[in-house]
Amino acid sequence: MIFRQLFEPQTSTYTYLVADEETKQALLIDPVVEEFESYTSLLNALQLKLVYTAETHVHADHVTGASLLREKLGSKSAVFAEAGAYGADLLLRDGDVLQLGSTSLEVRHTPGHTAGCISFVGNDRVFTGDALLIGGCGRTDFQEGSAAVLYQSIHQRLFTLPPDTLVYPGHDYNGNTVSTIKQEMAKNPRLGVSKTKQEFIELMGNLKLPYPRFIDRALPANKACGREASPLRG
Amino acid sequence: MIFRQLFEPQTSTYTYLVADEETKQALLIDPVVEEFESYTSLLNALQLKLVYTAETHVHADHVTGASLLREKLGSKSAVFAEAGAYGADLLLRDGDVLQLGSTSLEVRHTPGHTAGCISFVGNDRVFTGDALLIGGCGRTDFQEGSAAVLYQSIHQRLFTLPPDTLVYPGHDYNGNTVSTIKQEMAKNPRLGVSKTKQEFIELMGNLKLPYPRFIDRALPANKACGREASPLRG
Repeated sequence: MIFRQLFEPQTSTYTYLVADEETKQALLIDPVVEEFESYTSLLNALQLKLVYTAETHVHADHVTGASLLREKLGSKSAVFAEAGAYGADLLLRDGDVLQLGSTSLEVRHTPGHTAGCISFVGNDRVFTGDALLIGGCGRTDFQEGSAAVLYQSIHQRLFTLPPDTLVYPGHDYNGNTVSTIKQEMAKNPRLGVSKTKQEFIELMGNLKLPYPRFIDRALPANKACGREASPLRG
Repeated sequence: MIFRQLFEPQTSTYTYLVADEETKQALLIDPVVEEFESYTSLLNALQLKLVYTAETHVHADHVTGASLLREKLGSKSAVFAEAGAYGADLLLRDGDVLQLGSTSLEVRHTPGHTAGCISFVGNDRVFTGDALLIGGCGRTDFQEGSAAVLYQSIHQRLFTLPPDTLVYPGHDYNGNTVSTIKQEMAKNPRLGVSKTKQEFIELMGNLKLPYPRFIDRALPANKACGREASPLRG
C-alpha cells in the first residue's frame, strides 16, 4: 500500500492518500479544496490515478476538494448515505468496502461529532475523521452532534479494533501525527477507558467552544460535495 | 505482515513481534527474559514459528530473552557484530537484511546511545531501539555513548527516511506507542530540526541522570546474549 499523510495548515486538517502499489489506483480521504495543486503534483509524481475521494463527514471547517478533483481528474466522490450531502457519486453505508486493487477500506459508522460521521478501517489502521483525535475528539455541539452517541461510537466501534491499530485522525492541533487504539484507550483524557460515559457527557457539555469560524461558508459548500465553493482563505 | 507491540512494564520496554503472514516465520526485536511465557503464548496463538530474536543493542536495563528463546524454541539470536556481545548465532552488519518470507527488515547502524546500536527498517516503519524515542532519545553517558555521534545518527540515518515512516521505539515512559519521522523532526524537544548539534551535546551533558538501576546485572548477562541470566525482578 502507498500511503501519505498530508496536512492543510490553515485548519490543521489531515488528508490521507491511500493507493494500491500494483494497480496504481488512489483514494484521498478528506481532501481540502485549497490543496488541489499539491494533490495533483503528488499523484503525478507517484504516477497514481485518483479513483475516489472519500469524506469522513460533512466538514464545518474546510471545503472539500471532492468536486474540483472529480471535475479535473475524473475521481468519484464518496460520502456516507446519511451524511446530509447531495450530488455525490457513491453513497456509502456501514460495512461497505472501497477496493483499490488488493488494498481495501471498510466503512464504519461512528456518529457523535456529526450524525453522519464514518471511519475507514484498513488492514492495520483506521482513519477516524473528527470522531477520535489523538488525545481528544471532535466537538459535539453542532450538526446533530451528541456526546452520548460519540462515546458509544468510540467505545463500541473503535476501541474494539485490535490494540495496535494505527489511528490517523482528521485533525491535530499539536503536531501529533499518529496514535494507536491502545494508546487512546489508555490515555485519551476525554475518552480513555477510565472515563465513564457520564463524565464524558458532562465534559463535552462544559467546553464552551466558540462558534466555528468557517461553518457558515463550509457547511453549504460541503453539503454540495464542494461544488460552487469559494476558497475560505484570503 | 503480522505485527504486535509488546510492553514490559518493569522497565517500560517495548518488544516487537514481526512475522510473515504466509510463511508464519516470526522475529522478536528486543525480547525481555521475564516475558518468555507471554511470547510463547502469543506465538502459539498466532501459530507462528520464531526464527530470530534481534537486539537493537546490548541493553543496560533488562536482560534479553534471546538465549532462553533459542534454547526453548530454536530461534537464532542476532546482534550487531560490533555490539560487544558474544555467543550470538548471527552477527549483523550495517545494510544486512533479515528476511521472513516476503517481510524484511534492514539493519541500519545508529550509534550514539551505545557504539553498537542498530535500528531495523521495514517497509513503512523503523524500530529505533534507544537511539530515537518518542519526544526523546536514549542517554549517552554509558557504553561508549556519545551525544555528537547520536546526533549524527538521528539526523543522517533516521531523519532521512520518508516522513511518514512509523517510529517504534525501544521504550516509552509516558504511554506513547508510536510516532513518525516527520513528527520527531518537527517536535522532538532534544533532536528536532530546530536544535543544533551543539545544543544537543550541551543538553545531553547536563542531564545528571542517576546510575542505571539494573546495569551491573544486565550488561554482563546481555553481553552473553542472555545466558546465565537471573531475572531482575523479585
